[in-house]
Amino acid sequence: MADPIPFTLLHKSSDSRARRGRIDLSRGTIQTPFFMPVGTHAAVKTQTAADLRRAGAQVVLSNAYHLYLRPGLDLLGRTDGLHSFMGWDGPILTDSGGYQIFSLAKLRKMDADGVTFQSHLDGSQHRFTPESVVQIQRVIGAEMMMPLDDCPPGDAAPETWREAVERTTRWARRSRDHFAATDSHYGHPQYLFCIVQGGTDPDLRRRSAGELLELDPAACAIGGLAVGEPKAALFDVTALVAELLPEDRPRYLMGVGTPADIVRAVSLGIDMFDCVLPTRNARNGQLFTPLGPLNIRNARYRHDLEPVQDGCGCDCCTTISRAYLRHLFTTGEVLGLRLATAHNIWYYMQLLAALRRAIEQDRYSAWAADFLATYGEPAT
Amino acid sequence: MADPIPFTLLHKSSDSRARRGRIDLSRGTIQTPFFMPVGTHAAVKTQTAADLRRAGAQVVLSNAYHLYLRPGLDLLGRTDGLHSFMGWDGPILTDSGGYQIFSLAKLRKMDADGVTFQSHLDGSQHRFTPESVVQIQRVIGAEMMMPLDDCPPGDAAPETWREAVERTTRWARRSRDHFAATDSHYGHPQYLFCIVQGGTDPDLRRRSAGELLELDPAACAIGGLAVGEPKAALFDVTALVAELLPEDRPRYLMGVGTPADIVRAVSLGIDMFDCVLPTRNARNGQLFTPLGPLNIRNARYRHDLEPVQDGCGCDCCTTISRAYLRHLFTTGEVLGLRLATAHNIWYYMQLLAALRRAIEQDRYSAWAADFLATYGEPAT
Repeated sequence: MADPIPFTLLHKSSDSRARRGRIDLSRGTIQTPFFMPVGTHAAVKTQTAADLRRAGAQVVLSNAYHLYLRPGLDLLGRTDGLHSFMGWDGPILTDSGGYQIFSLAKLRKMDADGVTFQSHLDGSQHRFTPESVVQIQRVIGAEMMMPLDDCPPGDAAPETWREAVERTTRWARRSRDHFAATDSHYGHPQYLFCIVQGGTDPDLRRRSAGELLELDPAACAIGGLAVGEPKAALFDVTALVAELLPEDRPRYLMGVGTPADIVRAVSLGIDMFDCVLPTRNARNGQLFTPLGPLNIRNARYRHDLEPVQDGCGCDCCTTISRAYLRHLFTTGEVLGLRLATAHNIWYYMQLLAALRRAIEQDRYSAWAADFLATYGEPAT
Repeated sequence: MADPIPFTLLHKSSDSRARRGRIDLSRGTIQTPFFMPVGTHAAVKTQTAADLRRAGAQVVLSNAYHLYLRPGLDLLGRTDGLHSFMGWDGPILTDSGGYQIFSLAKLRKMDADGVTFQSHLDGSQHRFTPESVVQIQRVIGAEMMMPLDDCPPGDAAPETWREAVERTTRWARRSRDHFAATDSHYGHPQYLFCIVQGGTDPDLRRRSAGELLELDPAACAIGGLAVGEPKAALFDVTALVAELLPEDRPRYLMGVGTPADIVRAVSLGIDMFDCVLPTRNARNGQLFTPLGPLNIRNARYRHDLEPVQDGCGCDCCTTISRAYLRHLFTTGEVLGLRLATAHNIWYYMQLLAALRRAIEQDRYSAWAADFLATYGEPAT
């Protein structure tokens, strides 16, 4: 069996399930809990690798489906993988792209062995199997890899959910076997996660977690959430699954979320997050602050000469005013998207850093209640 | 009369009319010849002020017409002008916007006193006079200001050109008088240029230069070129007018140009340049290099792991390959526009720095011939 990811638990909160740890990878140590900015096409939109490093990003997330289509494995193989291709020297996690096949690709057809689909770009036909998805991520070279899973839409029938859980387990086993039978292309260790599925059905979630843990995965993710279900269901399932997952492996809640979501999920024992929210919402003019988000297009900021967030150290807040950022958005200047994105990533990184300190100081519950009250959300 | 701009001639080339000088302004000394990146809407597209400074930009150019419409004088007045609004602490030159009124605004109507036009944004009606344009630039706070002039289209009739020269002189005098009767809003010295017009007619150019020089302007610009006339005419007029302009004032060739254009114009005695070429062409995927421009979208760069320009110190060339930049363009990632723009501005700044050294070493003609041969253009 493959090794578990080198995870060290540094501190357990006494008043919640929040925990503070570290993951030691060949390209650096990750302090947990952490958030991964999303770089779908081998780039976090508008930001350079140096920007991300300066903001405190520890890991960049990318996507096997998108990278497989563009730039393609041929080029990634020539550059010794994604790290040197995009100039990011820290750890990388790649999602398998199963979710993207179901949300983007055309004429997809799933069978017991894998999924056949047409590219959303040019209609060309492709096939992913559990084995090929491991192989793609070997070429990409991500330190952390996700297996191909079956993630039905949120409104699927119970029978569909059951089949998805069964298929996810079978594919996880095949992924594990192929992973164990192959080597890293570039000499650095890679780790294969498993993804717990089962929608909002507690029994299916228990079954999925139980079956996957028998495979002794390097680490565990919770998939199939943050896809439109009510917030209560998101946290109920997260709490349930987090309790089932082993304490000595990091727990990754895929696709979550808002600052408040992250603060709450950490108190349930989650260690890893990713979401397009800070980058996508930046491009819509939404800036995150400790007092809640603000929309910079709002006319109230027209003459506002204060920075977006007082005391923030990002390139946006240290150099320009809300009025100037609003001007960039109203005139359609791309520099506005860039500076707003820089702020939101900085904000998320600072949030996670503050949250880690609160766990270290064993005052997470109080810190989280304060955070949520200031942010403008109720504490529960 | 207003003071001339503090210009010191440091070296005159013995084998051409190229010259090396400096302009001492309150926000810093400008080494001449120099090129100004264009920040039409109070931003050089995709670049921060810190990026520009790091690339070696000495001056940013902006535009009174655009700034008057957005963000408007009210906001610029509140921020103590454009410098602090956009976070650029170096000198600024603003064009009057006369050219933009004629190329962008709707239903414009010129009379002896000024020009009435509808905003290209919302159709609202506005009026510019020589006096109001000076006043707008007082509020903007640019160190170097251009007067309202009359710049007819390149294919205008000879009579139209003659009238334009006459009007440009009358308006230059009114601009000068209003400038002399008013003060800087923010305490730093400002300097008002004149703009020689006259199309490609040598007699009109002589007349325009002669009339304007009687006004003893702070410095002189050559307008109405780089608007579609043949390259030979551009250089003929530039050579003619440059000879007529006083040696003790900087000479500004507006809207020029390609690297080869600049190298040639410097040999005719030009000191100042601006052009959208490095920034606009970057956004179309055209990257400038000493071997001539390359288009990064070209399939030949698909697997090219070399930097755009070997040895270049910009953020693009020091961190990513041609293959990655091409990938950013083919996937529509804004980061590609940003990195390409960073390279082109860096290239222009390095070109001007090399050109200044060649003048200092009194080998400009030989350097220029070498440059043009390597760049792929004939030396004459």
